[in-house]
Parts: sequence; structure tokens; C-alpha cells
Amino acid sequence: MTSVPIFKESPLFWPVTLKGQTIHCLDETALPGKVVYLKARTTGEAIRLIKTMKTRAVGQVIMAYTVFLLVLKKNKKKQPAALLKLLEQTARQLIQSRPTFPFKYFSGMVLGWAKEAQAKNADMGEYVSARIEGFLSHLRKARLEQARALSKLLKNNQTILTHCNISGSLVAAADFCRKDGKKVRFVATETRPYLQGARLTAWELQRCGQDVTLIPDSAVSSAMAKGIVDAVVTGADHTALNGDIANKVGTYQIAVLAKHFKIPFYVLCPPASGTKTGKDIPIEIRPDKEMLEFQGKRIAPRKAKGYYPAFDVTPAELITKHVPMQL
Amino acid sequence: MTSVPIFKESPLFWPVTLKGQTIHCLDETALPGKVVYLKARTTGEAIRLIKTMKTRAVGQVIMAYTVFLLVLKKNKKKQPAALLKLLEQTARQLIQSRPTFPFKYFSGMVLGWAKEAQAKNADMGEYVSARIEGFLSHLRKARLEQARALSKLLKNNQTILTHCNISGSLVAAADFCRKDGKKVRFVATETRPYLQGARLTAWELQRCGQDVTLIPDSAVSSAMAKGIVDAVVTGADHTALNGDIANKVGTYQIAVLAKHFKIPFYVLCPPASGTKTGKDIPIEIRPDKEMLEFQGKRIAPRKAKGYYPAFDVTPAELITKHVPMQL
Repeated sequence: MTSVPIFKESPLFWPVTLKGQTIHCLDETALPGKVVYLKARTTGEAIRLIKTMKTRAVGQVIMAYTVFLLVLKKNKKKQPAALLKLLEQTARQLIQSRPTFPFKYFSGMVLGWAKEAQAKNADMGEYVSARIEGFLSHLRKARLEQARALSKLLKNNQTILTHCNISGSLVAAADFCRKDGKKVRFVATETRPYLQGARLTAWELQRCGQDVTLIPDSAVSSAMAKGIVDAVVTGADHTALNGDIANKVGTYQIAVLAKHFKIPFYVLCPPASGTKTGKDIPIEIRPDKEMLEFQGKRIAPRKAKGYYPAFDVTPAELITKHVPMQL
Repeated sequence: MTSVPIFKESPLFWPVTLKGQTIHCLDETALPGKVVYLKARTTGEAIRLIKTMKTRAVGQVIMAYTVFLLVLKKNKKKQPAALLKLLEQTARQLIQSRPTFPFKYFSGMVLGWAKEAQAKNADMGEYVSARIEGFLSHLRKARLEQARALSKLLKNNQTILTHCNISGSLVAAADFCRKDGKKVRFVATETRPYLQGARLTAWELQRCGQDVTLIPDSAVSSAMAKGIVDAVVTGADHTALNGDIANKVGTYQIAVLAKHFKIPFYVLCPPASGTKTGKDIPIEIRPDKEMLEFQGKRIAPRKAKGYYPAFDVTPAELITKHVPMQL
């Protein structure tokens, strides 16, 4: 029998780091086959990793701040005005990369700090870098706290249905449950077309010693009607001020089904961005090629057309409880 | 530009025929790449085509009766008692092949005719074959009538969402709409893991000149919330006496979503079998390998486990209108 590496923490929990002037980014598209870290040395290379979905979800938050760190590190000697211009340019590139993710919100934080430094006549590089690093270490702690808060909602012997992937947070929550003497099991949807459920969620839970069963995206009602789902937990890519959330397409229908079957629906969500309601969150439409082909092989007939919105918006009233990250 | 063959009737509408002592069966698993007919010369070979899902849905009805025709043709000279025994053995093999499909009901018809022939001292081979052939030609007519009845429910400019594949019936209904001067469009779910929506439904609609767009199974809520779905139409593999239907897994949740979004949900269904309610319909659990691999390539991590119920049961109260086949 081949030995299987067992991780204590999911590599998805913190997939991006800056070493010197190189960003190391876990290639989520190579999982579960290979654990590979891709390198980015420029803003352009880093943006490409986001666009091609090599990293996603919280990886994008970490990547965004890390890209700013990289720009600051590489341009230490620039004048404040020139450096601010570079940061603004980086912000624009991030915002254009994937429309549903609130890059505008995160970039706004960084640009705010840069303007503060300028106003205070402080060294912009040091001033902003210190705040980004502070934010990132706080983010790590806040995510662990969020996982702990989720674990308090879960009861012994429950089975949790999840969709797509929440970047190590479910593993962390299950670990907290274990420490509290509670056993939980997981049912993960495949999450077509990128199969994040099969490739990432099943992988990270299994490698961290948790019990997980995969189902097709279309078997959610089946599982719920059979009574084997006690709660649903999903992540969120974007939280609006009214509590609507945007997450991987399919989340909305699982929330409707959870309501129909009277099952609690919990969302691990980032802090609300400035967006008022879910209607105002732009939804990224991915190229239909991504669903009409599988690993380069055509699965649909020639000339068939597809419609692949990468996200959907779940209205706040379908969410039993938001488990927000407290930043 | 390569020319694309345009069919007048979908090859899926009548996928199984008997020529001499050989059954010709459209290989649905080779679609949309190739239009191939597989040959079966024995009951065992024919049953294998059902088990491996080379044919499905109405193809299984036609296959079941055609297998009986083959047995009768190959054993013309057998004594009635011996022939009846052979037919009973064939019935048992069919019933064991796929549990959700009402092979028991169809076999019961054939065995009934055989016993009638015995009681009347008629030639069993001729007596039963004539009735099977009569039934099959009636089935063809009844399916066209069913498609016509569906077409009456559809309105000009409507977009119809469908799941899995209804073996040419949607194409036939769209044709009736066209004759009545109504234009309809289709949205088809991929239908993991066998991708019948992508491989069969998109293929047959497109090749017959209809407008069809594929969506991931998880984008049903998205499409409905966007207001682009005017009605849902699915097939059914089994109708219970109370109106509950069993169909490809995923049908149930689409029915729940249709109710949530106040969209009519129509089912093209076979006549009710003797089964009382949906709870009494056995649900076939397929090997999880079928969802953990894709075309022989592993997509889930090693040792991952899956749960793949091939069907689910949609309760009658979620069905706006049954469009039954009138036999």
C-alpha cells in the first residue's frame, strides 16, 4: 500500500506566500493529483494565476495583498507619488481580473493606507507593508476563529453537506469539533465543471483524517430526502451589506433545497463589502469552453453552446446563520 | 466547414430494432462522437447492453420486448411449457438488470400473453410475437401523441429547461410546435455523471435544428432566477399509481426549484406500473467508480468514496401536469 501524506492543516488554508521577491501559489487545478506551488515574480504573472483559477476564494484575498507587498518590495526607492500610481495600477488590474470577487474593497484598504502614509509623510513602503502584514496575520487568526465559531454550531454525529471548497476552513472546524469530543461527517458535492468538491474538498478532508462522501451536484435532494444531511455549510466569495452572499454557482439552489427540507444553512462569509445587495454583485460568466470540454477533451457536440455563470447570489433570507470573519 | 448530419427524427426516438435474429441497439455512450449500433444475438448480450447503459429510458422498454421477440424467434420449435419457461427466465434476467425500471410490469404483460396462448392452445410463438409487435407499433404512435400533447402546453417564445434525456420526445414536441407556428428554445442540464444532457439532449436537439444551451446541473437556480426558464419538462423512468415519478437523479431538486420560482413542471411519463407510491420504487445505486472517474481517468483523490443514486423520486404534488403515454 502506498502511503498517503496526512496534513495537520489543509494546504488550502493558506495557499499563497511571499518568499523574497517571489510569490509561491498552490496550484489548485493540479490537485488532487499533485501538490505543486507555482511562482509569480511580477504583478502580471500573479494576476494570471487568479484569472486561470490556479488560486481562488480566500487564496485570492491573500494573493491580492501579497501582490501589493511584492510591488512595494520591488519599488522601495520610488517616490511616494510614483509608488501610489503603481499601487493604483495594480488595484485596477486586480479589479478587472474576476468581477465577482471584491478586489475593489481590498484594494481600497491598501490605497487608503498609501494615502495615509503620503499625508503623514511616512515611508510609504514600510507604512503600507506593515499594515498588510498585520492584516494577513490577523486574517489567519480571524479564519481560525471563524472555524471555531462554526464548530460551535455543529453537533455530535451530524453530517454536513458542503459545496465547492472553503479553503481549509471545514477541516479546521472539524478539528475543533474533534477537540470538543464531537464527531462530524461530510457530504461534498462534486461542483462541476471545475470539480472543486471532488478535487479539493474531498481531498483536504480525507488527507486530514475526516470522513467524506462525494455526491453528484444533482443528488442534493436525494441526500436531503433520505435524511442524511443535518446541516449545510458553504463559503462565500462576496457578502453584501444586506446579508446576500455570492458563492460558487449551485449554492443558491442548495439553500432553496435546505429550506424545503428544513435543514439549517450556514455560510462562512467574509466581512460585507460596500455592495448594498446581492443584485449589485456582478456575476462572472466564464467561457463556455470550460464546461463543454473536460481536460481538453470535448464532451458536448460540436457547435453546442453553454452558459456558465461561475457564481450565484443566495438571498439573506435563505441563510440560517452567517458565520462572518471578524476582522 | 464540415457538414453536420441533420436528422428529421432523433435516432434516440427508436433506438432498438430486431433484424433477423440480431438486435441492433444505438450505443448512447458513444454519442455525440459516433453514431454506432451494437449487436446482440442472445438474451445475455442484450441484458449486458441494458446493464452498461448502452441504451436507457424508452430504449429499455423497446429492448425488453425485443428480447422476448428474439427468444420467441429462436425457439419456434419448442413445446409451449418449455417456451414459457424460457420466457420466465428472460423476465427474471430483465428484472434483475436495473432495479428502478419497471421490467416486472413489462415482463408481466408478455408472460400473461404466453399463458393466454397456452390456455387457448394457440401457437405461443405466433400469438405472443403478434401482440408484442402490435404493442411496439402502438408504442411508437403513443409516444408521438404524447409529444403532441406536450407541444399543446408550450407557448410561443418559451424557453424550456430539461434534465437528462427524453429519447427524442422533446425533438418531436418541438417539431409539433414548429408546425403550429410556435418557436421554443431549450436549456439542458449537463446531467452528471453520464452527461446525458450534454451528450444526448444537446446533440439530438441541435442535429434536428432546435436551439439549445447547456448549463451545469448547479446553475438551475441561476437560470430560473434570471427569468429565462418558462417551463420545465422531464421524462420519467417509472410512474407510481399515486403520480410520484422516478427519473434521473436531479429531477427531484429541479421540481423543488420550479415550485420555488413558480415555474410549471411537466413530466412525460409512462403509464403507471403497479407500484403504489414513489416510496415503493427501488432506487438503483450505481458503482461510485462511475462518478469518481471520467472516461477511465480518476478525478477524485485515491480512496475517496462516493454515493451515486442513479434516480430520485419526485412527489406528485410537485408536478404541475403529468403528460402520460396513452397505451
